[in-house]
Amino acid sequence: MALLSCLSLHAETGANAWLRYAPLSDNAIRQSSANMPAVVLAYGNSPVAASAQQELIRGIRGMLGRTLRVEAQMPAESAIVLGTLADLRQAAPQLRLNANIDSDGYWLTTVKVNGVAYTVITGANDRGVLYGVFGFLRKLALGEIITGLDEKQSPYAPLRWVNEWNNLDGSIERGYGGRSIFWDNLHVREDLSRISDYGRLLASLGINGCAINNVNANPRVLGPDFVSQVARIASAFRPWGVRVAVSVDFGSPQTVGGLDTFDPLDARVAAWWKSKADELYRAIPDLGGFLLKADSEGRVGPSTYGRTHADAANVVARALQPHGGFLFYRGFVYDHHMDWRNPKNDRARAAWDNFHPLDGAFDSNVIVQIKNGPIDFQVREPASPLFGALQKTNQAIELQITQEYFGQARHAVFLVPQWKETLDFDMHVGQTSSVKALVAGKTYHRPAGGFVGVSNVGLDENWFGNHLSQANLYGFGRLAWNPDLSSQRIADEWTRLTFGNDAKAVETISGIQLSSWATYESYTGPLGLQTLTDITGNHYGVNVEASERNGWGQWHFADGKRVGMDRTVATGTGYIGQYSPAVAKVYESLATCPDNLLLFLHHVPYTYRLHSGKTVIQYLYDAHYQGADAVAAYVREWKSLKGRIDDRRYREMLAQLEYQAGQAEVWRDGVNNWFLRASGIADAQGRVGRHPGRFEAEAMKLDGYTASDVAPWEAASGGRAIACPGAKCTASLQYQGAPGWYTVNVQYFDQIDGVSRFRLWVRNQLIDEWAADDRLPTRKLDGTSSTRRVVRGIALRTGDEIRIEGSRDGGETAAIDYIEIRPDVN
Amino acid sequence: MALLSCLSLHAETGANAWLRYAPLSDNAIRQSSANMPAVVLAYGNSPVAASAQQELIRGIRGMLGRTLRVEAQMPAESAIVLGTLADLRQAAPQLRLNANIDSDGYWLTTVKVNGVAYTVITGANDRGVLYGVFGFLRKLALGEIITGLDEKQSPYAPLRWVNEWNNLDGSIERGYGGRSIFWDNLHVREDLSRISDYGRLLASLGINGCAINNVNANPRVLGPDFVSQVARIASAFRPWGVRVAVSVDFGSPQTVGGLDTFDPLDARVAAWWKSKADELYRAIPDLGGFLLKADSEGRVGPSTYGRTHADAANVVARALQPHGGFLFYRGFVYDHHMDWRNPKNDRARAAWDNFHPLDGAFDSNVIVQIKNGPIDFQVREPASPLFGALQKTNQAIELQITQEYFGQARHAVFLVPQWKETLDFDMHVGQTSSVKALVAGKTYHRPAGGFVGVSNVGLDENWFGNHLSQANLYGFGRLAWNPDLSSQRIADEWTRLTFGNDAKAVETISGIQLSSWATYESYTGPLGLQTLTDITGNHYGVNVEASERNGWGQWHFADGKRVGMDRTVATGTGYIGQYSPAVAKVYESLATCPDNLLLFLHHVPYTYRLHSGKTVIQYLYDAHYQGADAVAAYVREWKSLKGRIDDRRYREMLAQLEYQAGQAEVWRDGVNNWFLRASGIADAQGRVGRHPGRFEAEAMKLDGYTASDVAPWEAASGGRAIACPGAKCTASLQYQGAPGWYTVNVQYFDQIDGVSRFRLWVRNQLIDEWAADDRLPTRKLDGTSSTRRVVRGIALRTGDEIRIEGSRDGGETAAIDYIEIRPDVN
Repeated sequence: MALLSCLSLHAETGANAWLRYAPLSDNAIRQSSANMPAVVLAYGNSPVAASAQQELIRGIRGMLGRTLRVEAQMPAESAIVLGTLADLRQAAPQLRLNANIDSDGYWLTTVKVNGVAYTVITGANDRGVLYGVFGFLRKLALGEIITGLDEKQSPYAPLRWVNEWNNLDGSIERGYGGRSIFWDNLHVREDLSRISDYGRLLASLGINGCAINNVNANPRVLGPDFVSQVARIASAFRPWGVRVAVSVDFGSPQTVGGLDTFDPLDARVAAWWKSKADELYRAIPDLGGFLLKADSEGRVGPSTYGRTHADAANVVARALQPHGGFLFYRGFVYDHHMDWRNPKNDRARAAWDNFHPLDGAFDSNVIVQIKNGPIDFQVREPASPLFGALQKTNQAIELQITQEYFGQARHAVFLVPQWKETLDFDMHVGQTSSVKALVAGKTYHRPAGGFVGVSNVGLDENWFGNHLSQANLYGFGRLAWNPDLSSQRIADEWTRLTFGNDAKAVETISGIQLSSWATYESYTGPLGLQTLTDITGNHYGVNVEASERNGWGQWHFADGKRVGMDRTVATGTGYIGQYSPAVAKVYESLATCPDNLLLFLHHVPYTYRLHSGKTVIQYLYDAHYQGADAVAAYVREWKSLKGRIDDRRYREMLAQLEYQAGQAEVWRDGVNNWFLRASGIADAQGRVGRHPGRFEAEAMKLDGYTASDVAPWEAASGGRAIACPGAKCTASLQYQGAPGWYTVNVQYFDQIDGVSRFRLWVRNQLIDEWAADDRLPTRKLDGTSSTRRVVRGIALRTGDEIRIEGSRDGGETAAIDYIEIRPDVN
Repeated sequence: MALLSCLSLHAETGANAWLRYAPLSDNAIRQSSANMPAVVLAYGNSPVAASAQQELIRGIRGMLGRTLRVEAQMPAESAIVLGTLADLRQAAPQLRLNANIDSDGYWLTTVKVNGVAYTVITGANDRGVLYGVFGFLRKLALGEIITGLDEKQSPYAPLRWVNEWNNLDGSIERGYGGRSIFWDNLHVREDLSRISDYGRLLASLGINGCAINNVNANPRVLGPDFVSQVARIASAFRPWGVRVAVSVDFGSPQTVGGLDTFDPLDARVAAWWKSKADELYRAIPDLGGFLLKADSEGRVGPSTYGRTHADAANVVARALQPHGGFLFYRGFVYDHHMDWRNPKNDRARAAWDNFHPLDGAFDSNVIVQIKNGPIDFQVREPASPLFGALQKTNQAIELQITQEYFGQARHAVFLVPQWKETLDFDMHVGQTSSVKALVAGKTYHRPAGGFVGVSNVGLDENWFGNHLSQANLYGFGRLAWNPDLSSQRIADEWTRLTFGNDAKAVETISGIQLSSWATYESYTGPLGLQTLTDITGNHYGVNVEASERNGWGQWHFADGKRVGMDRTVATGTGYIGQYSPAVAKVYESLATCPDNLLLFLHHVPYTYRLHSGKTVIQYLYDAHYQGADAVAAYVREWKSLKGRIDDRRYREMLAQLEYQAGQAEVWRDGVNNWFLRASGIADAQGRVGRHPGRFEAEAMKLDGYTASDVAPWEAASGGRAIACPGAKCTASLQYQGAPGWYTVNVQYFDQIDGVSRFRLWVRNQLIDEWAADDRLPTRKLDGTSSTRRVVRGIALRTGDEIRIEGSRDGGETAAIDYIEIRPDVN
């Protein structure tokens, strides 16, 4: 028997995410309690059925302060009745339930028998009943009417999975919420409670599968010692209806199985896969299946033997098929040693080129898992043309919940609006050919298909390292269930469930979330430039040229005159020709190509005028200023939430947004300076390259500090910074401006290999001191480590000496980029 | 250089108490900033002067977000100027400052020179300047006008001290906020930061002395190895103008000094004290002096040699006199082996009897330290008659900040209203003979005198173990500075400084504080009964007879017919005759004796009618119900503060008040049942002894549990409880009431010697579980350990089995007193 949880007296850590079940307002409690039955009656005795009943009791206890009474027989009083439709029709025929409900779907209905009202939560299967309970509790939390119900909901697609890129050593590839909840040091963790908690979060959204290890799979996961370990994880997920899946390495028949080959057409290889699947299903009868990345980014695959992706997929899928398992085969296959000097080369073509010819060659339990765009989760991409190219193949869309290219949970970015743009995009290949319909199998009536989210939660109390990032998992799950929900609706639901129903708080937080993707795009890669970050490194800080002149193919071809990649059929790589004629026609012509994809699809002069009439170069400048200004506004708006939400999350998010505001200026200046230098075209508003009140550290009077170039140059103001090679150094300047109250921003570098310390003096007065103790993912002086300290309320007088003292620690050299002196705003 | 503190991003722990300097509202910042000079100029270079300047900068930085600019010369712009009057007159004659300021007093004034306004914070000495800074910052925090100032403040009395009953091993006698901040394992703590923080709190109130060890002194403190340790504490206090004092044992010349005597009239003894004082003053030139408890509660004293208290005090005082030190000599001297069968015996007479004859025999640097009442910090006592009996002797009032008899920081009790009753009480011995005037030395123009508070702060983050208890230290300090401040004013100040200026929060918290003493009195000892607690034990839980039939003399003489102690001159102990005739006349006559002291001064029948017309017995019953109801109302009121104050303190105080609400009912029932049994007179309202919905545990169906008597019987309902001698036991009953929503209160015992666990089941449904993990000071089943678990929102149906399962742990036997089933209130 699990411990009953005490909800009311703990601080808000974010651990319960949108399932806090916080007490409703007194008014809402009075209203809801009046109509709430006192009794719950649950039919069915599976672990999922038990979860449904327990969750209902927990939710109502939390929100209304009442413990539902568990009855085993239909009482003569009002009750909430749980069970599958089949069970209820047999055990409680007096309810006269009659309906068709899809698999995993649910029906909330109120039935009167002899004048007594029963609230029925039923489904086609146990999972449906559990989803119905979560749906009912969500309505209660949102203040919706819960009497006289008659609401049927079905999932939009049968497969709604998450992937966790967790390594068996406990690290996570592209994870920003701490170490793995599943693995540690080549073993499943002793304590399964976080896995169970995660299963609950997933179930609340209708997510029914989870791949529990990195898609870049360690072959050891198929070794004999791992079967029982995977089974332990499955046991923690099972009560929540979440099927476990395993990422596998295609070379496993050789590396684990001891064969001398992994040729998919070799009978011994097929037998090995079958025997391995049988072994796993004996331990985990509800295993979801496997996930496979082959022939991509250094993973072995069928190309070793000249076989096709279909050959590879089918040999594994046939081992799973007798058990009802699925094989998700990743469409993310491309050559990362591409010659950038050949203007016809184009990574964006790869998925279509690789998989389009194989349409129809995949078995019926194979799902080709296709990233939303043709490249790799960039801040803006068109929908992958592959979605429109598979008629006889199951497909799923892969969306990235973890914010790899979206600020890595250090920037607020709510991805639902982006995902919806792709899901709603019409490929014009049939009657109903939006991406969502295609991946759900609706367009061509496929037997399987759906949605996959790369989640990468971690052990951090709040799962993601950033409270607002939880909304992306929530949004993914809600869209996988019903992609017709609006972004507004999803943001509103999530905010209310996560932070409460205070109107001002809901408006503010939803407002930040809904604008956050556009904001982030505007300072990291507008007009289809993709994310202008360190593509070959940490994918975090600014680095405009990182994507150029290498084999990875994320080129934007910005030079002295022009920018963007020509993917037209007429003069470019021909990528646009992978779309249906209707789509291709829009993209091919500059007259119709949307501005926000312009540079993804066309190579144009900086002076090219957008539909708005603005030149490309001026738009770039303006967008970066707008983006940075928007984040500064988020900070001000967040401050209005004090007392309207809990203090802890208020404080943690305020610090997060203040950090983001500084980073947005690093991005703004980096990208704008780069394009100013490249294009030689001045900002019409005179901002770029001119920073009143900014003083470069390298121009200050240095004692101990030495100046050096920063790489990339645009990551530092003036391209240079100062670092302290010894133990302690100082940099100073004489203030020559007018007397008044000022804010001094110190732009310094916070690397990961030390905790250096800073002190700020005005004349001989110590004004502030701080430690560079953030955990940013770099040992370099660059856009990733560039960090801001804001010191407000300093009374400066003409002639004052401003002095910064830096104390080096380990590899961290107390480096400084510049200081900025701005009039205080109060 | 101390670390600058970052105020804004931390949770509210209570560590900064009323010196949080939280950011003011945006409006207040705008208003205050407009008139706030940017510059501070501080004259003087003592540690106290440095503290004054740093504190001013810290406070303004916290509240307004601005760092004052430190200048060394008078600037041509507006500035805040700090310094003693003497320093300022010499260094800045242009300010033309001219005033008389008392020692430790301050003057806030605005001076214009050549059209420039200077805000001057000056004092007679450095301490006065520091106090002026705290006064200025308090005005700012409270939203008072800080322009055009002309405010002079002087302390009401020269000596404003706290005593800390800290043992050298780190424990604290009657401390409820954790272990000592000073001592650990016979050494001063390595880390002096909490001592410094405490010095800052004390200085903010104008407190200028602190006795750093238990008045029941370990003689070792005068050993040679302790001099340097005391000096370390003094160094942490010195910047805050707090003088250290040491509690000494009168036998020290023998036990430490190696003499064969401690006879105060022996020249070798006098020489030893002198040499010891000289040694201490060499290390600590500003030592405040000594505190001495002699011939009381087992401490040795002058009676060993047939000498007087004056002999004892003077021999020590003469050692201190050349150094300007004081000897506080405690008036708390009484015989604790008194024969209770002699109706003329009276402990209340002791202080007067012992010290009145010695008036004039004490040296001029001796202060007789007199507890507020004649007994020992009881919930209600008259002012000690000794205050009116010393004309030629310095005196100080001893108030107890630590809540020894006031719920030990587990109950909210704001003591300022009680203290003010005593301080304002007129002894009618002269023109101006209120207690405050007498102790301040004003009545007889004494050279010394003042206020001593027994504080007993500890290492707990919030100092006292209860956030509201901080107000008692605040209130003590404010009254010691100015006893004419109203309780309302002090509560309002403290609440605003500690919890912010939200009007509803200020009203609610002040309201609870101001009524809390009356509330506590009404359920623990109304009508002058004193505190009806375990007088010979922990002084916490209910135990009506603990004070009877023993030598400690806190008798109330309740028997079958009558209650109260006859202290009249006519028929009683004659105690009333120790007062001046005017006071004695009021007390002697039942017609004029105030109701709230009736049973302290008179022995009356239970049927005696109070001035209100109510009988004594009915008043007792009613008061206890009113008191318990008032605490329940505090819980409801506190809940209205959610979002208006920080979450952490909101949650911690809510849990505290909910606990207190349960304890108040234990007290109510214990006292009322005792008097019902003693008097045989029924409650006119029919409540006492009748508890609808209460089910005694001993009457339940027991499996493993065994029933036994509780001592005292009134601490348990029905006088009995059940305990689990084995590992696990159950108690159950069949519910026979009407169906509905109910709250079940489980009254169980939470002792200190284990963590037993409980589970509550209805039929076979687990409704709640909890651990008995509180730290209440008893190993017994009694009123101290009696604790309540409130389980709301249970749907009961006639015939339901309610079952409690208890799991024993260590000495804690999962004992239960009763359960109570009450209709839910929503």
